[in-house]
Amino acid sequence: MRKNMKINILHLGFGKVGTEVVRQLSDFERVLQSRLNVELNFLGVFNSKTQFLPESGLLASQLIVKMESGGLKEGKDLDQAISKINEPFILLDTTASDQTFPYLIKALKKGGYLVLSNKKPLSGPYKNFKKLMEFGENRIFFETVVGAGLPVIKTIKDMMSTGDEIIKIEGSFSGTLGFIFTELQKGRKFSQVVKEARDQGYTEPDPRDDLSGLDIARKVLILSRLLGQKSELRKINLSGLVPDEMKDCSVEDFMQKLIHLDALYAVRIKNASKKNESLRFLGSVEKNKSSVQLLEIDSSSDIGNLKGPDNIVVVQSRRYSKNPLVIKGPGAGIEVTAAGVFTDILEAIKAIKANQVIPAVLNTLPVAV
Amino acid sequence: MRKNMKINILHLGFGKVGTEVVRQLSDFERVLQSRLNVELNFLGVFNSKTQFLPESGLLASQLIVKMESGGLKEGKDLDQAISKINEPFILLDTTASDQTFPYLIKALKKGGYLVLSNKKPLSGPYKNFKKLMEFGENRIFFETVVGAGLPVIKTIKDMMSTGDEIIKIEGSFSGTLGFIFTELQKGRKFSQVVKEARDQGYTEPDPRDDLSGLDIARKVLILSRLLGQKSELRKINLSGLVPDEMKDCSVEDFMQKLIHLDALYAVRIKNASKKNESLRFLGSVEKNKSSVQLLEIDSSSDIGNLKGPDNIVVVQSRRYSKNPLVIKGPGAGIEVTAAGVFTDILEAIKAIKANQVIPAVLNTLPVAV
Repeated sequence: MRKNMKINILHLGFGKVGTEVVRQLSDFERVLQSRLNVELNFLGVFNSKTQFLPESGLLASQLIVKMESGGLKEGKDLDQAISKINEPFILLDTTASDQTFPYLIKALKKGGYLVLSNKKPLSGPYKNFKKLMEFGENRIFFETVVGAGLPVIKTIKDMMSTGDEIIKIEGSFSGTLGFIFTELQKGRKFSQVVKEARDQGYTEPDPRDDLSGLDIARKVLILSRLLGQKSELRKINLSGLVPDEMKDCSVEDFMQKLIHLDALYAVRIKNASKKNESLRFLGSVEKNKSSVQLLEIDSSSDIGNLKGPDNIVVVQSRRYSKNPLVIKGPGAGIEVTAAGVFTDILEAIKAIKANQVIPAVLNTLPVAV
Repeated sequence: MRKNMKINILHLGFGKVGTEVVRQLSDFERVLQSRLNVELNFLGVFNSKTQFLPESGLLASQLIVKMESGGLKEGKDLDQAISKINEPFILLDTTASDQTFPYLIKALKKGGYLVLSNKKPLSGPYKNFKKLMEFGENRIFFETVVGAGLPVIKTIKDMMSTGDEIIKIEGSFSGTLGFIFTELQKGRKFSQVVKEARDQGYTEPDPRDDLSGLDIARKVLILSRLLGQKSELRKINLSGLVPDEMKDCSVEDFMQKLIHLDALYAVRIKNASKKNESLRFLGSVEKNKSSVQLLEIDSSSDIGNLKGPDNIVVVQSRRYSKNPLVIKGPGAGIEVTAAGVFTDILEAIKAIKANQVIPAVLNTLPVAV
């Protein structure tokens, strides 16, 4: 029997998605061991409040038990953990923090692999993105930053790595805004729909975080960089849905004032539907003109026909020119996002195996007699 | 500088797709060498008429030149070629032949990797499929057998390997039939549309090969097997579009007789559109009830809204239950199919690297002084 390869994990961000990733890994622990001959060993789990670091590491299944029993102790800091870690290892960033970049670089320099569901390190200054990519595209995986578990990034990378040229990527990258505009189309009021979305937990506590379009702009930025563009967030043509005079008030004031926007959207929806068009908050990536804005779209098109909280990504390329390649489905949610992170971990395992000259071979050489 | 890993290739089926694969590989030869440290070496190219086998192998770029100059010579046979080949190697089957299965098994036994765009070996008796899979799912790649270059197989495999359960896969898996029913919906006659599809080269020379639904049934069968079902082609509930009395006549007679079907389809289309439904030739995979049949589908649904020659695949799973995961786009065409084969070759290269205990390490061991 082959000995399992032990891969160490440092896990930043232990929120809902992070916890679900560990749960899914725990369910598949035996499969990973028997089929891939891999044992994932959590050496440290870190969140904003406390730093946990079990002494010699824990399997996902053991970590789950510790978490549930509250048996995790405060431990050493992340910087030290990266300094001490042995290869091969994966640094998992499931935070929403813009502070993790230096640790990611440190991990790459140490020979580690990165799996991120965190958009921030990829959507900061271009020079940071470039630094992360300089270690090679098989060292960093981030499928879930656009469309959660939908196979968006991977499909685009596969197209490019077989010589296709991407001409345009557009789509609806926010389930929250998809939900809002689907409801508006039914004749409901903007203020009412935003309130409902907030009450249901579809929006951030301050709905302006969604309505500003900033999160979508980050996704558009990452896609444009994936296509090789040296783009910056401020260069994206972002027309958010929060009027200037409503940007600085309290959340409560904002929710009160929403009613003033009802007429505006009612008219736009009405005019659009006369032309058989739908209002969509559209993200678009093209050479030198990426944008995020509210647009009227032919209702029978893929994007115009979108309903509810689904995401859709429409990729037009040299090979897929007349008819684009379309990927659609839930683009958010804890379980599907965690599954996307899990898929990335499997990709990272493949890359680790492919890149390393296996020291174990030394022990299995035929002995000279 | 690291030495390139040489991967040998035996290529069966040198038709349009096969030639385009070599052309795309040729364009990317330097990238493969510089980024992946891999050199693909064609040891043999085989088609039904002649067997070519250059002595010590050719790079894709050299093979292209030889092909264009007609400089390929008749060579040794395939069986012998597999016996003689050194690892690591890939057997590429871009034929449409049902005779390649024994060679595929022989190649697997020899330690080779398979990349197939050929559906036949995967849609024969279940025991053959099982034999192919017994060597491990990282030894055989066949993304293009459903939806050509669309990322269908890979997405389903990723879902399953992260613990999702597929409940249902349905879709329109034939661009030809998609085209025909889109045109019918415009009020055109069945006989007229089939004739046009044939004249444009959208159908096989005998359109009954498309209208029978057999090719779609093969795709449905492969998908069902991917989900772990021990299914056989004859068990698929296939309701083709060729009436019994038109099955045995000549192609010319068949084309003449098509006019008798015009009224039938005109009525069905009319009745469907009254209910805001579209006629779709639907493939469906579910536990113990896979089928291929003509059905009325809500016109505003993803499948009902499909236009022209696009394929669509709708995957419903435990995680994607309320809103399915949808992949849509051109599901045929030489360039996109070849690109899908190329993607599979890249996956096979990753798997080769990940699986092999690199003999080269023996030469780089520190010498004891």
